[in-house]
Amino acid sequence: MTNVLVWNEHRHERQKPDVAAVYPHGIHETIAAALREAGCTAATATLDEPEHGLTEAALATADVLVWWGHAAHEEVSDDVVERVRRHVMGGLGLIALHSAHYSKIFRRLMGTGCSVNWRVDGQRERVWVVDPAHPVAAGLDRCFEIAHEEMYGEFFDIPAPDELVFISWFKGGEVFRSGCAWHRGYGRVFYFRPGHETFPTYHDATVQKVIANAVRWAAQPGGRRTPPDSARREPLEPLEPLQ
Amino acid sequence: MTNVLVWNEHRHERQKPDVAAVYPHGIHETIAAALREAGCTAATATLDEPEHGLTEAALATADVLVWWGHAAHEEVSDDVVERVRRHVMGGLGLIALHSAHYSKIFRRLMGTGCSVNWRVDGQRERVWVVDPAHPVAAGLDRCFEIAHEEMYGEFFDIPAPDELVFISWFKGGEVFRSGCAWHRGYGRVFYFRPGHETFPTYHDATVQKVIANAVRWAAQPGGRRTPPDSARREPLEPLEPLQ
Amino acid sequence: MTNVLVWNEHRHERQKPDVAAVYPHGIHETIAAALREAGCTAATATLDEPEHGLTEAALATADVLVWWGHAAHEEVSDDVVERVRRHVMGGLGLIALHSAHYSKIFRRLMGTGCSVNWRVDGQRERVWVVDPAHPVAAGLDRCFEIAHEEMYGEFFDIPAPDELVFISWFKGGEVFRSGCAWHRGYGRVFYFRPGHETFPTYHDATVQKVIANAVRWAAQPGGRRTPPDSARREPLEPLEPLQ
Amino acid sequence: MTNVLVWNEHRHERQKPDVAAVYPHGIHETIAAALREAGCTAATATLDEPEHGLTEAALATADVLVWWGHAAHEEVSDDVVERVRRHVMGGLGLIALHSAHYSKIFRRLMGTGCSVNWRVDGQRERVWVVDPAHPVAAGLDRCFEIAHEEMYGEFFDIPAPDELVFISWFKGGEVFRSGCAWHRGYGRVFYFRPGHETFPTYHDATVQKVIANAVRWAAQPGGRRTPPDSARREPLEPLEPLQ
Repeated sequence: MTNVLVWNEHRHERQKPDVAAVYPHGIHETIAAALREAGCTAATATLDEPEHGLTEAALATADVLVWWGHAAHEEVSDDVVERVRRHVMGGLGLIALHSAHYSKIFRRLMGTGCSVNWRVDGQRERVWVVDPAHPVAAGLDRCFEIAHEEMYGEFFDIPAPDELVFISWFKGGEVFRSGCAWHRGYGRVFYFRPGHETFPTYHDATVQKVIANAVRWAAQPGGRRTPPDSARREPLEPLEPLQ
Repeated sequence: MTNVLVWNEHRHERQKPDVAAVYPHGIHETIAAALREAGCTAATATLDEPEHGLTEAALATADVLVWWGHAAHEEVSDDVVERVRRHVMGGLGLIALHSAHYSKIFRRLMGTGCSVNWRVDGQRERVWVVDPAHPVAAGLDRCFEIAHEEMYGEFFDIPAPDELVFISWFKGGEVFRSGCAWHRGYGRVFYFRPGHETFPTYHDATVQKVIANAVRWAAQPGGRRTPPDSARREPLEPLEPLQ
Repeated sequence: MTNVLVWNEHRHERQKPDVAAVYPHGIHETIAAALREAGCTAATATLDEPEHGLTEAALATADVLVWWGHAAHEEVSDDVVERVRRHVMGGLGLIALHSAHYSKIFRRLMGTGCSVNWRVDGQRERVWVVDPAHPVAAGLDRCFEIAHEEMYGEFFDIPAPDELVFISWFKGGEVFRSGCAWHRGYGRVFYFRPGHETFPTYHDATVQKVIANAVRWAAQPGGRRTPPDSARREPLEPLEPLQ
Repeated sequence: MTNVLVWNEHRHERQKPDVAAVYPHGIHETIAAALREAGCTAATATLDEPEHGLTEAALATADVLVWWGHAAHEEVSDDVVERVRRHVMGGLGLIALHSAHYSKIFRRLMGTGCSVNWRVDGQRERVWVVDPAHPVAAGLDRCFEIAHEEMYGEFFDIPAPDELVFISWFKGGEVFRSGCAWHRGYGRVFYFRPGHETFPTYHDATVQKVIANAVRWAAQPGGRRTPPDSARREPLEPLEPLQ
């Protein structure tokens, strides 16, 4: 059974009534509940817990970390970011959702600025599957719709994805690479675009299915490894005789 | 100076008045004239010439072959397709335009079915640049528009492009990977989507710029090489002493 | 349970005593037995059976096809190759072993010449893992050795792999991309280099583990689909109102 | 004409007589002289200059930055690393040489640990070309040799290269992805393995040719751009009417 840790900034829901109306228990609880329905074990953590809830123990027992952040990226401590990064290097899966494109951990893993264009217009997003045999697209039709969403538009400043699974169409005239996979160290990283806090995106059954698919794809069988750059570093003995 | 050979099926223009009205001298002549303006040397060839105009000599003197075909893909002889393929393996650049996604040579180089969804609705296409530092996108803004075009929609059944440069947005709700680069043997292949025969797409200055960019990107300095699979094939001498 | 069909040319074993001594029941039986040990269901097929044993029914019930061929690539009928290709497009996994780099089906799926350099010297091959988190490398150390093998050297004329898992070192001074993954249509393709017929490579436990890993990686959950280019091709209805 | 800035830690040459004997004026001067021979304009900068010689002005006038560092990676200031990173995002090419795999700027751009295995044995390295049509491999044979080098072995903890150009063979039994290209922001990054300070690698004509090829490949025509994440970030106006 896959162990998931769902992390949420959890500020908007406590500060903005319109967000609280959509996610009364927080975005993390909505996502965690959906993952439990899908057969995963799901714990949660939030920014204002000690160590943001991302203790060594919490990370060590997770197969996959789901991340939602928006307005307080800079409040996430660099030490915790480095701790998460080290776990990803050792095999922790990471699912970065929506505005997590601008989180410290995602930018750190990408090495680029990760900026996007955007517009909160509440119009339709249509997510097209461009890699229908990819595990994250399992069980989907050729596209799915989200009735009301924030728009993200290209250019999305990321390294070219190792696997591009979804491209979004927006009514206002934009496109976006909205489902992207990368491999980093022993870990797998997936970015999934939908999920603005003022819309009920994470209550949508198809969106929940995609997140569950992504979690299963990102989970490594066999557990955590020592990250490559933490391994012993002494000169390697030659395998062939040198003289 | 880059030597380009522009190939066109050249049937629609002779059979359909509405196409002849847009391309009175044929699509090939419109493209060739634009490439000459851009500083290339451009010859042309068409389906109904002997050997489809794709003689060994014509191919040997070309750096890049531009290909437009639509209704008569099956009339292109397999021998000529194999000849073109061998030249691509040896370094000939290939620019496949619009319905050339279904040409024998493009499908042969891709190894997949290369099918698309489509609709001739004459609505707006907006082409977004998703790799702004790519040479084929040189001099472009973040997107460009074509007022009236045929729609192509995903899933586009291709191998994942080595480089994805453009994604198109269509008014009817679709997206498409409309600028894709691959490397095959010593050759470079670029697919560029716009260009339905009933619309004046190839008279558009931005479209012409993209094609000229693609031609320059696909041209190999240093000329044609012996394709890898035509090279001498005897056992390789060991470089290190084996005992 | 994964259903595998192991195909073998099965000529060398019947014609050459030195090969028969190593694979008395044929390479296919050695591989099939190892896959059964690993928990798969494995059937076999060979060149000289009717339709090379690759009937529509045999392919339809397979999740993955393992292919070994060497001296008789040209005797495989084009119709059967096209049938296999169609199944791969619909989701059949394909594992191409050793000299299958030059098989019709592998070259057809790659679109390139797929030639290699070689030398039958019976020296040591050391296979290095360059993507240790890849499912095909599960359970392996940083490298594994094969005491006696044929050498294959670069340049290997393939499209750049979507995923590069292994690189081989050869005593005579060469390297080779010996574990390569591609996605074609709905199918997954893996090339694995070791396996010359005069050496007991397929009796090696690590080689057997790699092949079983590759089979599990290439098997698509959910069964065969209609290949993209066999789907209905009528104009797509617009999802958005066009006026 | 391409403007190159060659950066060197320049400590070993001043502290170790055996290094000074090989590079009496510093590794940077040897490389810069070779680049001037190849038709580039080359300036130099070193760690112990103010701001490590990497002032805003010095970076702004460079098309490509060549980087060699080894023992003092941690002494490079984070502010300067961020400045270099911003320039790469805006189009500055970066050539990371040998032990620069572990430099702050390279690791920052990769997002992974970038560790390697190694052994200073002074044995033969043979560098194989696995993408012979790549501009960085222009003019090379199928492989080239370096008589005496340090060994680097896999696993090299990098994101899968966008383009893999070279693989090295080492006498002691190892392989290494020794020529790797990535795209980051508007910039191009190339890692080239050879170049241990105690060996005359940078005096070798083929190594010099590769570095000059890499510089030309990494230089962006059209000059520096505003990095994507420094661009104005206000909501995007819709291109299509939303109602």
